[in-house]
Amino acid sequence: MSRVTIKEIARRCGVSQGAVSYALNNQPGVSEATRARVLKVAAELEWVPNRAARQLSAARSETFGLVLARSAQTLIEEPYFMGFVGGVESVLSEKSFALALQVVADLDQEVATYRKWAAERRVDGVIVVDLRVADPRIPVLRKLGLPAVLVGDPALADGMPCVWTDGTAAMTAALDHVASLGHRVIARVAGPPEFGDVWIRDQAYDVAARRLALTASIHHTDYSAAQGADATRDVLAAIPRPTAIIYDNDLMAVAGLAVIQALGLRIPDDITLVAWDDSALCRITHPTLTALSHNVVGYGAEVMHRLLDVLAGAQPQSHLYSTPLLLIRESSAPL
Amino acid sequence: MSRVTIKEIARRCGVSQGAVSYALNNQPGVSEATRARVLKVAAELEWVPNRAARQLSAARSETFGLVLARSAQTLIEEPYFMGFVGGVESVLSEKSFALALQVVADLDQEVATYRKWAAERRVDGVIVVDLRVADPRIPVLRKLGLPAVLVGDPALADGMPCVWTDGTAAMTAALDHVASLGHRVIARVAGPPEFGDVWIRDQAYDVAARRLALTASIHHTDYSAAQGADATRDVLAAIPRPTAIIYDNDLMAVAGLAVIQALGLRIPDDITLVAWDDSALCRITHPTLTALSHNVVGYGAEVMHRLLDVLAGAQPQSHLYSTPLLLIRESSAPL
Repeated sequence: MSRVTIKEIARRCGVSQGAVSYALNNQPGVSEATRARVLKVAAELEWVPNRAARQLSAARSETFGLVLARSAQTLIEEPYFMGFVGGVESVLSEKSFALALQVVADLDQEVATYRKWAAERRVDGVIVVDLRVADPRIPVLRKLGLPAVLVGDPALADGMPCVWTDGTAAMTAALDHVASLGHRVIARVAGPPEFGDVWIRDQAYDVAARRLALTASIHHTDYSAAQGADATRDVLAAIPRPTAIIYDNDLMAVAGLAVIQALGLRIPDDITLVAWDDSALCRITHPTLTALSHNVVGYGAEVMHRLLDVLAGAQPQSHLYSTPLLLIRESSAPL
Repeated sequence: MSRVTIKEIARRCGVSQGAVSYALNNQPGVSEATRARVLKVAAELEWVPNRAARQLSAARSETFGLVLARSAQTLIEEPYFMGFVGGVESVLSEKSFALALQVVADLDQEVATYRKWAAERRVDGVIVVDLRVADPRIPVLRKLGLPAVLVGDPALADGMPCVWTDGTAAMTAALDHVASLGHRVIARVAGPPEFGDVWIRDQAYDVAARRLALTASIHHTDYSAAQGADATRDVLAAIPRPTAIIYDNDLMAVAGLAVIQALGLRIPDDITLVAWDDSALCRITHPTLTALSHNVVGYGAEVMHRLLDVLAGAQPQSHLYSTPLLLIRESSAPL
């Protein structure tokens, strides 16, 4: 009787188990050449797809979890989450799977949610966002055996499967850009310092500022429009006043733009402004905003695909999804 | 042994069962006077809160369902859904309840999802959006006994609990506005004609146009930015060319604005433009957009509160949440 596994097919083909799963289930994500090779090997080994598929799906809830330890207002205001959840749903909707979305007050409640979901087999796996330095959720997820993909840098993921974008390269590009325009005093309006991706950007900002001999400050916020506006007021009150500001998301950049213009300062004549994520907001404003651009919808879809890989038996891996690209628009000008 | 029910307390207090539930569970949504009266009556009747609370919560999944028979792209692009889901989450997050969000291709898949959720007791209740005329989901939900609140006009809800905003009054205000500015040829860029709320706005538009003796056309779309842009091109190609356009959502209004400006026409000099929902988009554009304004976040929260009422035993009722208010901004001008 056939005991051939996806693992064995993957080994013989020299591809990941995820790739084999995609090929056997006729899903996008592998080249036609790989798909053909996988199907050939599976046929040679007399792999039995139906039984395997049934085994895979038997205990499944067909629901995947995403817990947000932020305010519900984040969902409304933050284009990043809109795009990310839309990307996740674009993968789930093809299979009629559901997303369990839960907003909680803090990490303790987030961990409690994972415990409950694992105990009640509510979800097949979870997507974990806003990674912290030495994240307390990682040992809990390991102990629960709850399949998970972490969204963030491998340096934060402690060997768990993760998908990341290269914040260091992106931040370095942003500082090279403003320095090349002649700016010498700059500011960064950042997310919460306990978030790992913010910490990584902080480091990259400091390193690049020293290399370029810039006077550089960092102002941490909770990512909200309100705190982005407050931080911008702080930046503009500093002496010497920075002439370029780099924001950690689009929402704070747009809020900062309004503060700057309300004070009678001109963009880009007086202040060069750089946003991050490059949602539609950056092209609607006047002037349009220079931004670190990445495909947030594609990022959400990639994370969900990798979570399906994990369920199909893939080994933990870190996937670099992209390096955000600096798109120069009207909010940048020489000093 | 006490057999006092919430129903009995409600009857004695002359308030709804939902109000009693709020008062007894120390939740917002009732006045302090009502809360005091309910607690007094409950004490007099020797109502036993703990047992009742346990009975209520015993079989609960603490998850509520929302199925969207639209493209996943809707979640990313459409500020309405962002706000609505954010409002629902603002209520759920207080209680650490989850939202099961599922995007499907069509109503058949939506109905299949309800059957699955009901059979597997996956959700405690559902929020049903995009009501159709003679909606096929209503008899299925009734038969399944799945608690539900419908988002839409009572004329579409067939006696099921519903929460609605008054589209007829809002559309009438929009036509009175453009007619008062002297516009005689107008167009409406509408959502899908099979959606009940679109149908109600279509009727109100026709009635008001006849009363005001306006030449008026309707162009139906799928609510997307792409079809909003296409419909705007159709409107501008018509002879005589309309001088005022009323859109069914903000996304299409912003897409239409771009089309109009790209053709070298000026807003409001050549075309008066009215949006619907009044998300932040309407205030970011240049010019800012006149819009039918309502609190979409509050609407989502209200719907979720009413669904909790239904679970607490409230009788089916229709709740008028609001009448969208016409906010006149820079995109309106006399002909």
